[in-house]
Amino acid sequence: MSPHLEDLLDFLRIPSVSTDPAHKADVERAARFLAEKLEAIGFSVELVPTPGHPIVYAERRKDPKAPTLLVYGHYDVQPPDPLELWESPPFEPTIKDGKVYARGASDDKGQVWIHVAAAAETQDLPLNLKFVIEGEEEVGSKNLFAFLRENQSRLRADAALVSDTAMFARGLPTLVYGLRGLAYLEVEVEGTKSDLHSGVHGGAAPNAALAAARIAASLKSPEGWVRIPGFYDEVRPLEPEERAEWAKLPFDEEAYREALGAEALEGEPGYSVLERRWARPSLDVNGFSSGWTGPGPKTVIPARASFKFSMRLVPDQDPDEIAALAERYVQEVAPKHYSVRVRVFEGAKPVLVERNTRAMRLAAQALKEAFGRDPVFIREGGTIPVVTALKNELELPVVLMGFGLPDDNLHAPNEKFELENFEKGIEAVKAYYRRFAEEGGVA
Amino acid sequence: MSPHLEDLLDFLRIPSVSTDPAHKADVERAARFLAEKLEAIGFSVELVPTPGHPIVYAERRKDPKAPTLLVYGHYDVQPPDPLELWESPPFEPTIKDGKVYARGASDDKGQVWIHVAAAAETQDLPLNLKFVIEGEEEVGSKNLFAFLRENQSRLRADAALVSDTAMFARGLPTLVYGLRGLAYLEVEVEGTKSDLHSGVHGGAAPNAALAAARIAASLKSPEGWVRIPGFYDEVRPLEPEERAEWAKLPFDEEAYREALGAEALEGEPGYSVLERRWARPSLDVNGFSSGWTGPGPKTVIPARASFKFSMRLVPDQDPDEIAALAERYVQEVAPKHYSVRVRVFEGAKPVLVERNTRAMRLAAQALKEAFGRDPVFIREGGTIPVVTALKNELELPVVLMGFGLPDDNLHAPNEKFELENFEKGIEAVKAYYRRFAEEGGVA
Repeated sequence: MSPHLEDLLDFLRIPSVSTDPAHKADVERAARFLAEKLEAIGFSVELVPTPGHPIVYAERRKDPKAPTLLVYGHYDVQPPDPLELWESPPFEPTIKDGKVYARGASDDKGQVWIHVAAAAETQDLPLNLKFVIEGEEEVGSKNLFAFLRENQSRLRADAALVSDTAMFARGLPTLVYGLRGLAYLEVEVEGTKSDLHSGVHGGAAPNAALAAARIAASLKSPEGWVRIPGFYDEVRPLEPEERAEWAKLPFDEEAYREALGAEALEGEPGYSVLERRWARPSLDVNGFSSGWTGPGPKTVIPARASFKFSMRLVPDQDPDEIAALAERYVQEVAPKHYSVRVRVFEGAKPVLVERNTRAMRLAAQALKEAFGRDPVFIREGGTIPVVTALKNELELPVVLMGFGLPDDNLHAPNEKFELENFEKGIEAVKAYYRRFAEEGGVA
Repeated sequence: MSPHLEDLLDFLRIPSVSTDPAHKADVERAARFLAEKLEAIGFSVELVPTPGHPIVYAERRKDPKAPTLLVYGHYDVQPPDPLELWESPPFEPTIKDGKVYARGASDDKGQVWIHVAAAAETQDLPLNLKFVIEGEEEVGSKNLFAFLRENQSRLRADAALVSDTAMFARGLPTLVYGLRGLAYLEVEVEGTKSDLHSGVHGGAAPNAALAAARIAASLKSPEGWVRIPGFYDEVRPLEPEERAEWAKLPFDEEAYREALGAEALEGEPGYSVLERRWARPSLDVNGFSSGWTGPGPKTVIPARASFKFSMRLVPDQDPDEIAALAERYVQEVAPKHYSVRVRVFEGAKPVLVERNTRAMRLAAQALKEAFGRDPVFIREGGTIPVVTALKNELELPVVLMGFGLPDDNLHAPNEKFELENFEKGIEAVKAYYRRFAEEGGVA
């Protein structure tokens, strides 16, 4: 096992679940672990405290005249639940069939470690590196945005590189130029002051579980349209060239359906599956909780119910506006004699980055060097809140060069990262650092 | 504090939650506690093992020629969840303002203890007592039914007395002559083989939480009708005399609404609140669980969702038939590309007992003796599965003489029992035992 892989396994052992207050100390431990490794390879590192989890900011300055590359990643991970569906414990990384299984293996610790390894092996390059590795990507990156705003001059660079995306398919290097945004809400419904006996009160008492189910069910039409009025108003139509390009990608809808274990796919009529996932907005219920959920029957009328739902947004939808529309709609469709509270979590803007930049061309060359073939250009359906800030606030050309795979089980049980992609990823990033050191400076 | 009350508090300290396998030993401990107390007051006791929890069967034979009364109660309790809403711990009985707060205080340990106390104080009466106190009332009484079927001659009696109901109002003694039945189902919906990242797959993947919400929402019309075809076919219409009698009861709909903490009541148009709760069938969602229910956002598409729902039934609805109709409807309305499994829990038949029996007349006299006024005759919305068996299989006149109150928070946080009712209950039951010893024999 390479020392880089050993280090990654240690990194994966730290349950840095940013969304769960119980893991606050673990999140900080992951930050310190990363900081120590970066210091050992020549970086000067600062653990930047925030009201949430710290940002690891590391610089390796070589020469004021050399090009400067800003690298972004995150060391926090999603919660591992449901635990019982993991085949090996989420925080005991397990190598099997050339893959490492662990929460965060692909999203994003494995990809962060590609940069740590590449930086370790390029210590003599005339390239200034600035690493911004945050601990709050999975909770909306709010404090990172403040950091970026307040450190614009310190973060000056010639381009930014983000490795938090996937390749379109195994062996097919990929550059991502578009990401969806996010609006995330929680709805709490209350019908009575406490839970009631369904025999004594059934037939007269409000039922919060049923009311919440009605609200949730009314968010989307059975055909797959989001029913929130105004939701589609700002959606930028797909370009015919983009649709044609995507139609050529090696995508087997039937194999995709089968990989999900779904009997059929869903979504808006009139769009291909890739279009629905990358360039059309979507809505999902993410969680639902009410009443008795333990084993066996309990004859209770739940006083309260809550559910979470989120929308993936595309240009030019604005997360704040969409959240406001969604909140208004929820209050409109809610039965009037229930108390309904809506909470809006931190959102994220959708983003498209320029494809015709020098940074992007160098990235394409580096990927070809490592993988032996030209990359494809795609969008992704996920959200990386920082990309918008890197593009709009730091005004950097952004490259999204990721090494995950579509079946990596992000945010789900049995997340994995392929060791081949870890190794080729290191090669590609080293090649990019080298080419960037040669040609990435100010034009 | 009276020794009876001290004993009751000890009884309430045992968390005999029959629905939760983790409490199996506690349930058995409650059975043994009860058995020892009954032995101390002259009963011969058997802990009858069942595939589930034991039945406490106790006999105190005085004279083969004396009348025999069968007393039924249950020593198991509902789960205490949600724990955080209890003002004192559910299994640390707390006396406050003349009430004892604890899970099971009213349903049914407090009422069982009324009989233990009354039997302790009537040890010289020429009355044969047979106590059947089960540990599975809250999970459907399945094993009790087998016991009743297999022990018909041993259980021979002149009448049965059940204390597991409530008085209509504080100070108003009450005899219950009707109970609703129950059909209880659990629905499990599966859309994909595992949870998915809502960014990567949102817009194309099935969403089990949303599908389950659609199914749950379609069970009832917004107006309060149950939408399951055939559901109302066997419902016996209310008699005009019964409606007139109930209309005279001191019931303040507005005060009831306020006590529930509801902004408005629900239910079938055309029926009074009491009619809806006692003599019309109802449907409630009892619990709902899917995806991420912890704090903060998690951008997951849940693979699975499950919810529980139950229906209170009235004569002449049959629980098996209704469960079958409900299961068929769920499968019909479920989106076709989801896997939907329906589980049917043990149901219970609705029941009406004869009002014009000698046992009922003696009960009315005993209540008047203890409370100083004539009892009212009502139905209740809850289910006591054993009453049907006592009536139909053992062919006994059944008396439902209960001492709970409508605001006892059965099956809910902060369940309580009023000490005044505990004391007057003991007086009433002693009076009933005495009158029954005098006049309750075979006519």
